[in-house]
Amino acid sequence: MNKPRYTGSDALRDVCIALFRAGGVDQKQSCEVANNLIWSELVGRENFGLLRLPIYLERVAMGGLKCPCDPQFSNRSDTISILDADAGFGQYAANLATERAVSLARTSGVGMVGVRNSNFFGTGAYFINKIANAGMVGLVLSNSFPKVTAHGGLSPIFGTNPLAFGAPRRNGEHLLFDMATSALAGSTVRECIENDTPLPDGFAIDQNGAPTTDATKVADGALLPVAGAKGYGLSLFVEILAGVLTGAGVADGVSSMYSDVSAPGQNGHFMVAIDVSRFMTPDEFYTKFEALIVSIKGSHPSNDILLPGEIRWRNYHRNLETGIPLGDTTRKVVEILCRQHDVPVPWAKTRQVA
Amino acid sequence: MNKPRYTGSDALRDVCIALFRAGGVDQKQSCEVANNLIWSELVGRENFGLLRLPIYLERVAMGGLKCPCDPQFSNRSDTISILDADAGFGQYAANLATERAVSLARTSGVGMVGVRNSNFFGTGAYFINKIANAGMVGLVLSNSFPKVTAHGGLSPIFGTNPLAFGAPRRNGEHLLFDMATSALAGSTVRECIENDTPLPDGFAIDQNGAPTTDATKVADGALLPVAGAKGYGLSLFVEILAGVLTGAGVADGVSSMYSDVSAPGQNGHFMVAIDVSRFMTPDEFYTKFEALIVSIKGSHPSNDILLPGEIRWRNYHRNLETGIPLGDTTRKVVEILCRQHDVPVPWAKTRQVA
Repeated sequence: MNKPRYTGSDALRDVCIALFRAGGVDQKQSCEVANNLIWSELVGRENFGLLRLPIYLERVAMGGLKCPCDPQFSNRSDTISILDADAGFGQYAANLATERAVSLARTSGVGMVGVRNSNFFGTGAYFINKIANAGMVGLVLSNSFPKVTAHGGLSPIFGTNPLAFGAPRRNGEHLLFDMATSALAGSTVRECIENDTPLPDGFAIDQNGAPTTDATKVADGALLPVAGAKGYGLSLFVEILAGVLTGAGVADGVSSMYSDVSAPGQNGHFMVAIDVSRFMTPDEFYTKFEALIVSIKGSHPSNDILLPGEIRWRNYHRNLETGIPLGDTTRKVVEILCRQHDVPVPWAKTRQVA
Repeated sequence: MNKPRYTGSDALRDVCIALFRAGGVDQKQSCEVANNLIWSELVGRENFGLLRLPIYLERVAMGGLKCPCDPQFSNRSDTISILDADAGFGQYAANLATERAVSLARTSGVGMVGVRNSNFFGTGAYFINKIANAGMVGLVLSNSFPKVTAHGGLSPIFGTNPLAFGAPRRNGEHLLFDMATSALAGSTVRECIENDTPLPDGFAIDQNGAPTTDATKVADGALLPVAGAKGYGLSLFVEILAGVLTGAGVADGVSSMYSDVSAPGQNGHFMVAIDVSRFMTPDEFYTKFEALIVSIKGSHPSNDILLPGEIRWRNYHRNLETGIPLGDTTRKVVEILCRQHDVPVPWAKTRQVA
């Protein structure tokens, strides 16, 4: 894991924006998607970062990601709004939806925004962090293309359907919880394929329904829901709110970003913001929440039980200070795109520190 | 499992009410808690049914359940209300909160009600069913006394913190999903103790943190969160919304209904109702949802993958028709209470059918 670190997240962000511009992405989407990708790199979620640039640019070129797009809100009450994402970047639409949810919650205590006609949105934690920055508790859900079975089922019905939750902390290092409702995340399967390592036991089946640890067999087989019936119920929780209720694609109505680059994913998202200050003063909330955190930390002699998101914050501060570590693949990917699009390779501008 | 079945859920309900009255429970709470217990019996959740009558009556006598109680709502917006349950029955308070959440959602699209100063509320599915009967999607959470560790922790921090979710179906047999965020439900541990059977492997630790399958060691040890870090995050999701945000007890601020019968549990609940009709017509929703259900059913050659709650509905219809099956312990418990409180034993009035 001794990856070279590159300082200058701003420089990397500028490269993303330059590549997006060269690839035909409009200015609005470029800036927000670049923010999202760089944040993902900073917190150590490489899988949601620069690595995805090639597929995004390919989808832009082929029409799967619409640029420019013209997302439209339809307000349904002082609390509820629905956003038609117009087939643009999921990161862009979900960010608009997050801002709207926060604004509704500021007025009404709760904001709930459903997004339809969208695409893959990256990591839910990014939006949760924005909601928490506003002093609010957040819940962010997204459906995705089918690769997970119902409990007892053979063929995949659900996406890995992530569920993200968070709550604000006084120190700004908010609780950021982000789980796949499947036994394994899609990114874990991809990593196992790339590294030629086996999947953990009991988490996937091949096309005949037999248990498999061969990551390459998941494409024709399926992942299992996490913890059987529980993960199945949680997948439904996500699919009903993010898919059925928003009017987005449901089950095989959602497509993979890799399988047809010319078709929008039809993903649906669901963002909830709850204004803490309607329940108690922020100070009371922080005090109660920190007391719970002290109990959690102290529940082991090491006094260092981690909160969800805590590793992300450690990465964030270290990477901001000492540079973003970029793997060989990521660097190669960026270099190739830069040459293709006549954009200066960033390593020329940034300082390699390790 | 050849338990005698007793027809007449109304007769059993009357017995509950008579016992409650004799034990000093006020009329309002008696009726609602009896409804709750009988529904739990009808759907086959015996652990949340008549079996609990002795501890409830003991807690009423000793002050842990306040009768009468005077719950007070404090409205915080058109969407949010907080209910101080005044230390009454959790089933009663949670029902009031559910009705308020539905009423707020009717007006604003979303209703969110936090409950503090409450007690154990039974099964979340009961309230989810009420929300779904109103044509709404529901989320119901409750915290409970600590017996589950944080991921990696040694001493218990969280309750089994149930998470219940549901959505309405056109045929009235709503999706009812109700999970403990711990690896095992508390009721499973009690069943293993009563039947002298081992716990499944890897779900509990003894007081030294060593894995155990001995159910009697859980009281001094702990249960683990379901699926490790994921269950830990879900426990936090429940604890933050139902405990921290409502102003209820948090972590060891919540007490077991069995450990101190004179002290209120200080449980917190969190009920959310979302009016489907703000997103689309109910008919559109039902059509989309049923299409998803058809996909799920068809994802196995048997075409019979079950939805969460489907077994409950099968039980409900069978038990309503052929009688509620009552185990030996339940019958003995009811007989003893009836004699103590000079209430006629129900089997005299009901027909034993098997």
